[in-house]
Amino acid sequence: MSANATLPRKDLFDLPEGVIYLDGNSLGPLPRAVPAHLAEVVTAQWGGHLIKGWNEDDWMGQPGRVGDLVARLIGAPPGSVMMGDTLSIKVYQALSAALAMRPDRRVVLSDNGNFPTDLYIADGLLRHLDRGHELRVVDPEAVEGAITEEVAAVMITQVDYRSGRMHEMERITKAAHRAGAVMIWDLAHSAGAVPVDLAGSGCEFAVGCTYKYLNGGPGAPAFIYIRPDLAGEAQPALAGWMGHDAPFAFDLDYRPAPGIERMRVGTPPVLQMSALEAAMSVWEGIDMADLRAASVALSERFIAGVEAACPDLRLASPRDPSSRGSQVSFAFDHGYAAMQALIARGVIGDFRAPDIMRFGFTPLYLDADDIDRAVGVLAEVMDKRLWDHPEYRRANRVT
Amino acid sequence: MSANATLPRKDLFDLPEGVIYLDGNSLGPLPRAVPAHLAEVVTAQWGGHLIKGWNEDDWMGQPGRVGDLVARLIGAPPGSVMMGDTLSIKVYQALSAALAMRPDRRVVLSDNGNFPTDLYIADGLLRHLDRGHELRVVDPEAVEGAITEEVAAVMITQVDYRSGRMHEMERITKAAHRAGAVMIWDLAHSAGAVPVDLAGSGCEFAVGCTYKYLNGGPGAPAFIYIRPDLAGEAQPALAGWMGHDAPFAFDLDYRPAPGIERMRVGTPPVLQMSALEAAMSVWEGIDMADLRAASVALSERFIAGVEAACPDLRLASPRDPSSRGSQVSFAFDHGYAAMQALIARGVIGDFRAPDIMRFGFTPLYLDADDIDRAVGVLAEVMDKRLWDHPEYRRANRVT
Repeated sequence: MSANATLPRKDLFDLPEGVIYLDGNSLGPLPRAVPAHLAEVVTAQWGGHLIKGWNEDDWMGQPGRVGDLVARLIGAPPGSVMMGDTLSIKVYQALSAALAMRPDRRVVLSDNGNFPTDLYIADGLLRHLDRGHELRVVDPEAVEGAITEEVAAVMITQVDYRSGRMHEMERITKAAHRAGAVMIWDLAHSAGAVPVDLAGSGCEFAVGCTYKYLNGGPGAPAFIYIRPDLAGEAQPALAGWMGHDAPFAFDLDYRPAPGIERMRVGTPPVLQMSALEAAMSVWEGIDMADLRAASVALSERFIAGVEAACPDLRLASPRDPSSRGSQVSFAFDHGYAAMQALIARGVIGDFRAPDIMRFGFTPLYLDADDIDRAVGVLAEVMDKRLWDHPEYRRANRVT
Repeated sequence: MSANATLPRKDLFDLPEGVIYLDGNSLGPLPRAVPAHLAEVVTAQWGGHLIKGWNEDDWMGQPGRVGDLVARLIGAPPGSVMMGDTLSIKVYQALSAALAMRPDRRVVLSDNGNFPTDLYIADGLLRHLDRGHELRVVDPEAVEGAITEEVAAVMITQVDYRSGRMHEMERITKAAHRAGAVMIWDLAHSAGAVPVDLAGSGCEFAVGCTYKYLNGGPGAPAFIYIRPDLAGEAQPALAGWMGHDAPFAFDLDYRPAPGIERMRVGTPPVLQMSALEAAMSVWEGIDMADLRAASVALSERFIAGVEAACPDLRLASPRDPSSRGSQVSFAFDHGYAAMQALIARGVIGDFRAPDIMRFGFTPLYLDADDIDRAVGVLAEVMDKRLWDHPEYRRANRVT
């Protein structure tokens, strides 16, 4: 057993001087390994090897190779995760394949804490199929009770993007399977944020993105997981040439690759994926249990500090850390303006309508001192009502 | 009227010393503007601005902004082209929307010179819809005659990836419209290669990729065009949040954006798209008619040279340049080994089974002297039967 890496590892990130970045749940910061690696891929590989890069630099194998790096962090075996496209596309693929596994059922169950694009994609797919399917959207707390034998697929995001509320993966997956439904997890706010045991959960599909806690950069590719025993029978809705059993045979007929490779669609984004591949190096030696412990400690410290110093803010996340992902939200009527004032002072979080101030906790590059400083700045913003100060309002274009 | 740029513009490309690159029809070489711009986006924008890059650096507007640069080269008005995803995904979107426009028709017409992924995607879509559609694939010469009133959509690639044979866009579009069919053009081998007049053709949809003649780099994003009068009614099959009328309202219900924006799906690949955006600068001042004239001159020179010097090679492209795109193919039984020997000597083309040696002509970075030298090397390879020489076979792993 190798020694675990210590947290934080601030030296691996290029964060602007003086900034405390609490928005890694939206877009992770730049890992220092990225610029040189990406420059090498652009200049030496693309520029120098030209078309030969597909083989010499194994661009072709990159989506699976990077998939294995992600797999380790989400409890998936090597060869079960494929990178590519966007999370929206991967949701479409997973849900299409799930419905094909339950042709006699007509309900897709989700919750209203899901990220909207998952619901849009599901709704679009069901209208497209036009076979009388229903997208049934319930409150997050009602999901388990709503899993009936009508349900073809349960499709939910584990960690709510607004509140940070976290579903119990094993319990809901078991409930889905008891009712004979296929389980699809969206790990957008889980991968790299909380320990995930996909294999242990037994779920059929999982999807996620890599520009949040995995720090892959703006527009980094998504991933899809299929439980290994099902990968050979999952029907790829988007039957692109890269998922063909022999892409370079240029057959006129489609024949899916034997395993997870069939979830590839078109030509992979080599440059974008190379940034991600370099970014994944920050995870070497990190044990997700250690990361989770650090994340909970930072979050608890933040909540205690804010509640002591900012009585106007109301905790909008579960108080029990075991029911939270790696973010904390506070509700405040003037949250948008307050967040702008906070950002102007170097503490970067974000805002989600109508009144949610979000803060992400990422132990790879945050420590207790950062949290205390962030609380101090937030307290000053609130105490001086900076969010209501005309100068701030002008500077931050608050209207 | 501004002066046109002169061709070639070799100084704008970073080509390896001594290489003659005749494979820009597969992957364009590195424009010199890319590395510095991409490094700036990575370090100053992502690294420095973090989440604020979406607004401060207008990452959000990039897919439309780059789309306008592509639009100019394919005869499309500003605001009618959107970048994103891969060509396979864009084919799926275009064909889905086309079928929704002709709900009472059940035939999709294509030809067997189409790139396989278009056929795979179409076949997958029709199986997915399961409404009795037929994908009818005819010989390229038979397309026009096969456009009957059963046909919902004609979906063909203008320039054949193997032979370079080029369909007449205006004529086939007219035939499709006479029969009441929707016309979809795949411009993978047309954009940046030949003059295209999308608006003049009246076609409903066009799609294409940008890593070939547009030099956007490996995995550069695709594009989709919708005729402006139809953009507001085209049904997006992949209803992702970036195509929503108000993505950041996080509504639970999908409401498509009013125009071409609705063809956006997920979070755009900012880094990959930034490489493309910089690469598009090589087109400033280029008139596509000038480019076409230079392309024809280079291709004719190559054909004449090869036919004079290499009697074993048989022209596998149309002899009439007006029926060809910007590539020339020769058939040869030992084409694979011969191409390997050619590449080992610095002349890079490629090979497509069973016996096609492909050569792309890209006047942005090729001149008559390059062509003459390429012909000379090819003649030597053929004359000395280098492709059959044990040393070459070992070095190039020809088995």
